[in-house]
Amino acid sequence: MKEWLTLKRNVRFGDVDAAGVIHFHNLFRWSHEAWEESLEIFGISSHDIFPALSQNSEILNVALPIINCRANFFMPITIGEVLQLTIEPEKIDSYGFQVLIKYCRGKDIVAHSILRHMAIDSTTRKRCLLPESIELWLESSLVGGPIKPL
Amino acid sequence: MKEWLTLKRNVRFGDVDAAGVIHFHNLFRWSHEAWEESLEIFGISSHDIFPALSQNSEILNVALPIINCRANFFMPITIGEVLQLTIEPEKIDSYGFQVLIKYCRGKDIVAHSILRHMAIDSTTRKRCLLPESIELWLESSLVGGPIKPL
Amino acid sequence: MKEWLTLKRNVRFGDVDAAGVIHFHNLFRWSHEAWEESLEIFGISSHDIFPALSQNSEILNVALPIINCRANFFMPITIGEVLQLTIEPEKIDSYGFQVLIKYCRGKDIVAHSILRHMAIDSTTRKRCLLPESIELWLESSLVGGPIKPL
Amino acid sequence: MKEWLTLKRNVRFGDVDAAGVIHFHNLFRWSHEAWEESLEIFGISSHDIFPALSQNSEILNVALPIINCRANFFMPITIGEVLQLTIEPEKIDSYGFQVLIKYCRGKDIVAHSILRHMAIDSTTRKRCLLPESIELWLESSLVGGPIKPL
Repeated sequence: MKEWLTLKRNVRFGDVDAAGVIHFHNLFRWSHEAWEESLEIFGISSHDIFPALSQNSEILNVALPIINCRANFFMPITIGEVLQLTIEPEKIDSYGFQVLIKYCRGKDIVAHSILRHMAIDSTTRKRCLLPESIELWLESSLVGGPIKPL
Repeated sequence: MKEWLTLKRNVRFGDVDAAGVIHFHNLFRWSHEAWEESLEIFGISSHDIFPALSQNSEILNVALPIINCRANFFMPITIGEVLQLTIEPEKIDSYGFQVLIKYCRGKDIVAHSILRHMAIDSTTRKRCLLPESIELWLESSLVGGPIKPL
Repeated sequence: MKEWLTLKRNVRFGDVDAAGVIHFHNLFRWSHEAWEESLEIFGISSHDIFPALSQNSEILNVALPIINCRANFFMPITIGEVLQLTIEPEKIDSYGFQVLIKYCRGKDIVAHSILRHMAIDSTTRKRCLLPESIELWLESSLVGGPIKPL
Repeated sequence: MKEWLTLKRNVRFGDVDAAGVIHFHNLFRWSHEAWEESLEIFGISSHDIFPALSQNSEILNVALPIINCRANFFMPITIGEVLQLTIEPEKIDSYGFQVLIKYCRGKDIVAHSILRHMAIDSTTRKRCLLPESIELWLESSLVGGPIKPL
């Protein structure tokens, strides 16, 4: 398995609510952070993807807002667990992609989430082509690796 | 419109990320809080629904975990806006219900979310009947009021 | 009491952790939001103080980062409570101010927090004079009202 | 340096606000999670310290609420940085301790935080002796190791 698509997550005290299980929306925080970690391990600098405050950073032309997201919870997630994450990116078209993350405890899938992003021009806020680095990450993440040209 | 189904929400500085729009998962925090506010205005005490730490509070027999949730973002949501929320609850079966929330700015729907809850026995964690107070809230929230038997 | 200095806050399910009391850092979120609400009621637009994404909004010259903050917790804060907030702003010097917030349940102070802000030039990030609107809010918030010149 | 007292933290997109720097209260979330990670590396199970929902977990007799916390921000913290954390625990008396965390970027301290905990009996909510495992972690964390009796 590609090392940028298999991560882990420790469930911390602050993730859990008074019912003793993960407070549901923290799963989305985890999912976004897992996506960021995946890009980082793959070799994409956060400064190429996310707006940043730095004298050296250029203004980014493309933003990648989430236009749709969902999550399913199958089993309780409680403090002290270490979950294994499997990331399955999928290109939707030239303008968008989604990231499916499966959260597992041993052989059980305890939850999964899907975040769907669209590329937009930062100035006009019209949709635009995905950045090349994201295209490369998507292609390289396909099971079996990127399709080779003949 | 029933007063417990139409709320409002101010977009605060901490809700927004470096891209200048709502950081997506905050919408789920808003949605859960709106559901709680709706129950409160309707007249259901939080202590009847949510586990609490209090010498006077009984242990709750029923928990209402979220088993599925999703959100769609249609237009950017930025700081300083006051959004109008419309809450549309729907009973799924004797064991579950969902809450659809539409977030509007004037006539525009800028986002919506759906949280789906299942009733479970707090001890066995098996599904069980919805609490009566939730049944009443669901029934009373139907557009046009509860359907009368002939 | 001035209406922009006395607010209230409902403790929601997501604010509380598995120990059944407020997860401590949520108090800081409340405090920042209370400060924003105070400015709003006083009549200062969030767009004059906080960076925003809007074609109509000017780039702000001054930022007001928090350089120091603290909180004390005196009694447990649990779900379903409605806390009364008293806001006590204080000017430190021409470049900074702090906001003390007391959280009360009836006659008991259950917690308080202090957020200390410094004005900086957004571009150079050197300290600079407080914005006039903040000066006015600070002066008008003094107990007994602003001191009049002779 | 003891390995349970030197951690690191990646600054993620969701940690940062529209001003482009860490939204201040996230530092407290980091600090609590760093404390949890330190205990874990040291060898203390989260189930011995934090309330959990599990059929195997005993009800904990002792809770360790935060009674006071503070933070100082010295330099902007922005997305994509990897900060080095140094944890300096200190026993206050038989009933309490504090955890100072310094956040560094190379040789610069960019922020620090202090969380002060008090041990209380979970049922009576009166203060009580610190758990033995915490005593051991505190003692072992002293620079140069625990002071030996003559």
